[in-house]
Amino acid sequence: MQDKASMAICRQLCRHKVYFAVIGLMLMYILYQAFPCGSAPSIMMVPKEKTKYIYDINQRAIPYDENTPIIFVGGMPRSGTTLMRAMLDAHPEIRCGEETRVIPRILGMRTQWDKSAIEKKRLEEAGVTAEVLDSAVRAFILEIIAKHGSAATHLCNKDPFTLKSTVYLSKQFPQSKYILMIRDGRAVVHSIISRKVTISGFDLKSYRKCLIKWNAALETMYAQCMHVGPHKCMPVYYEQLALHPKEWMERILNFLNIPWNESVLHHEDYVGKPGGIALSKTEKSTDQVIKPVNIEALSKWVGALPDDVVQDMENIAPMLKTLGYDPKANPPNYGQPDPAVADNTIHIKQNADFWRKREMDVLSQGADDQFPQQQQGVGAQQEAAGSDPEKTAPKEEVSER
Amino acid sequence: MQDKASMAICRQLCRHKVYFAVIGLMLMYILYQAFPCGSAPSIMMVPKEKTKYIYDINQRAIPYDENTPIIFVGGMPRSGTTLMRAMLDAHPEIRCGEETRVIPRILGMRTQWDKSAIEKKRLEEAGVTAEVLDSAVRAFILEIIAKHGSAATHLCNKDPFTLKSTVYLSKQFPQSKYILMIRDGRAVVHSIISRKVTISGFDLKSYRKCLIKWNAALETMYAQCMHVGPHKCMPVYYEQLALHPKEWMERILNFLNIPWNESVLHHEDYVGKPGGIALSKTEKSTDQVIKPVNIEALSKWVGALPDDVVQDMENIAPMLKTLGYDPKANPPNYGQPDPAVADNTIHIKQNADFWRKREMDVLSQGADDQFPQQQQGVGAQQEAAGSDPEKTAPKEEVSER
Repeated sequence: MQDKASMAICRQLCRHKVYFAVIGLMLMYILYQAFPCGSAPSIMMVPKEKTKYIYDINQRAIPYDENTPIIFVGGMPRSGTTLMRAMLDAHPEIRCGEETRVIPRILGMRTQWDKSAIEKKRLEEAGVTAEVLDSAVRAFILEIIAKHGSAATHLCNKDPFTLKSTVYLSKQFPQSKYILMIRDGRAVVHSIISRKVTISGFDLKSYRKCLIKWNAALETMYAQCMHVGPHKCMPVYYEQLALHPKEWMERILNFLNIPWNESVLHHEDYVGKPGGIALSKTEKSTDQVIKPVNIEALSKWVGALPDDVVQDMENIAPMLKTLGYDPKANPPNYGQPDPAVADNTIHIKQNADFWRKREMDVLSQGADDQFPQQQQGVGAQQEAAGSDPEKTAPKEEVSER
Repeated sequence: MQDKASMAICRQLCRHKVYFAVIGLMLMYILYQAFPCGSAPSIMMVPKEKTKYIYDINQRAIPYDENTPIIFVGGMPRSGTTLMRAMLDAHPEIRCGEETRVIPRILGMRTQWDKSAIEKKRLEEAGVTAEVLDSAVRAFILEIIAKHGSAATHLCNKDPFTLKSTVYLSKQFPQSKYILMIRDGRAVVHSIISRKVTISGFDLKSYRKCLIKWNAALETMYAQCMHVGPHKCMPVYYEQLALHPKEWMERILNFLNIPWNESVLHHEDYVGKPGGIALSKTEKSTDQVIKPVNIEALSKWVGALPDDVVQDMENIAPMLKTLGYDPKANPPNYGQPDPAVADNTIHIKQNADFWRKREMDVLSQGADDQFPQQQQGVGAQQEAAGSDPEKTAPKEEVSER
């Protein structure tokens, strides 16, 4: 009996040892996890890149890295790029934000380094290969897009000329998608000239020269959009978006794989609201996107273009035809608006004073931005590479409306 | 007896439960650690920034982030910056590498954005605040420094004019340290002019104007070096480094908190070796750092400067006196070389042919780099902000030796 009991105790003691060993081992593992060796920069095997985070107002973190599905909105200035991004911004899950201005510039620098054979050779000699440069440019762009506005599940960027770098960007951000805004070149050029939007390389005195420039820019952007293919880049016609916003926003959100939300049809309600649409007082299109979607601007250009330019339109701007605009129709039939859009347009016309006041309110805090002159030194090279040196609107300026 | 035994067994069972509970809890903790929740991009609380990694040839990873202690070497071109970085590069734990050329440019862009009140306002309106820009610039610089050469425990960068941004950089990289190379301005300017080193803003026809420019550059760099203080920035006199390499390298490595290694005194043995010194065939100083430390170049300038400039030296370049060079002595007494340096100098003189051949060997693969003209468009603004558009040496060019 005593033997049996003492044997039982012995077995218990043996089991104790096993338990102690197990606990000891686990303790060691936990301590090892908690205090990994080498807090000093030692050499080790690890995964290549880590995700970073952006924080919303509640300090909730949203991770981002180069595999984040960024939406790039672009096109020629005055083609509805701001309307497009405002409508997307109204979606609770999307944040585009204002034009960053620095993303086209870093892309411009990148292009320049690549174009100059001498510089390329020098950089490669220094170990600064295309791969290294891309990695740095990617990191730069990512920080700007992620941090210049509030956190959101879907990040988006709108700097018009970035779409000239669609192919490059789509390689840098493999999950990115592109919305290329297209608008009748005659309307674009009329808007640029009548609103005095300075874009380097554009001679605001000549409709003909501006149309040639528009044609070249669209050729590049459209070719790049086609090159990356319909799963990555979607051309959106400004006229159609304005005439049929519901149909087009459905298509666009579908293309972006983002669930439908009614708010995209009422972007004007989200201007300046937290999580809504942040507008820059120094951006030229701000005074227009505060209004609901309307078709006031569609055919303003008719009658404003010189006769010889109108006659020669097919040769001056062959992209018109490529994109499906009849170069001989003045204006072409863009189509009939949805009832809601027709209503908005009438409402805006009837309440012109209200909207003028609203415009003043939104822009008033920035009323001291009397920037007389576009800063010098932005060469054609930089423009070609994607800079958008749009001049800030002096308040007395001719308005399109 | 039976009672006692069964009580003992009961106690044992109770203990078992405790052990099981402890093991269970630990198991849960370990599983939680091994499989953290939320691999999908959901919203969560997390630390702000993660470390990235660079990989050496054996695919061993070295982590890097903005808290990595980066060494920045700079100063006026032709002041021994290449010698300094080559000596550091010879240390097995340090990698500087070639001039990246793009780091001064991104710093220049950053300065420009800050200097223009209009642009600053526009960027801030767009949410692209100083903080956001800094974050992007930091990410860009970090990628370039980390990836343009092999991995090393201590990263280092040498782009001469970056030391004009010492204060800015030391804020961006809190653990960084700075080595400001200083050399007698008369020797610097003589070297620039005789070797036809084009630096924007420098008129190579005028010793006087070049000395004034040298003075201004040194004023800025020295002030910034003093501003961040002796724990972060160390001025190193080229003459002293050349005369007493052992003493100065000991001081420098001590300042950098890096253990002494004899290889820094024999940098010429590590040129082109894996983990050694990578040289660029398009950098002007490459033909000089292939030689051991010597004092051939110390007083070459004597007699080359116009008399009126020599007479007026105190007024033209007051920084000479500030830095401890006697503006009236031609040359001042820089000191006596260590025996090893004196030997090297004699050896190089006696074997001029051998060294010329060695030069050709190192540069030969790049012999088609006949870059006749410095690329245009680098303005004074950019230069002021830290660009270093040094012209690549045509091979026929006047040599300093």
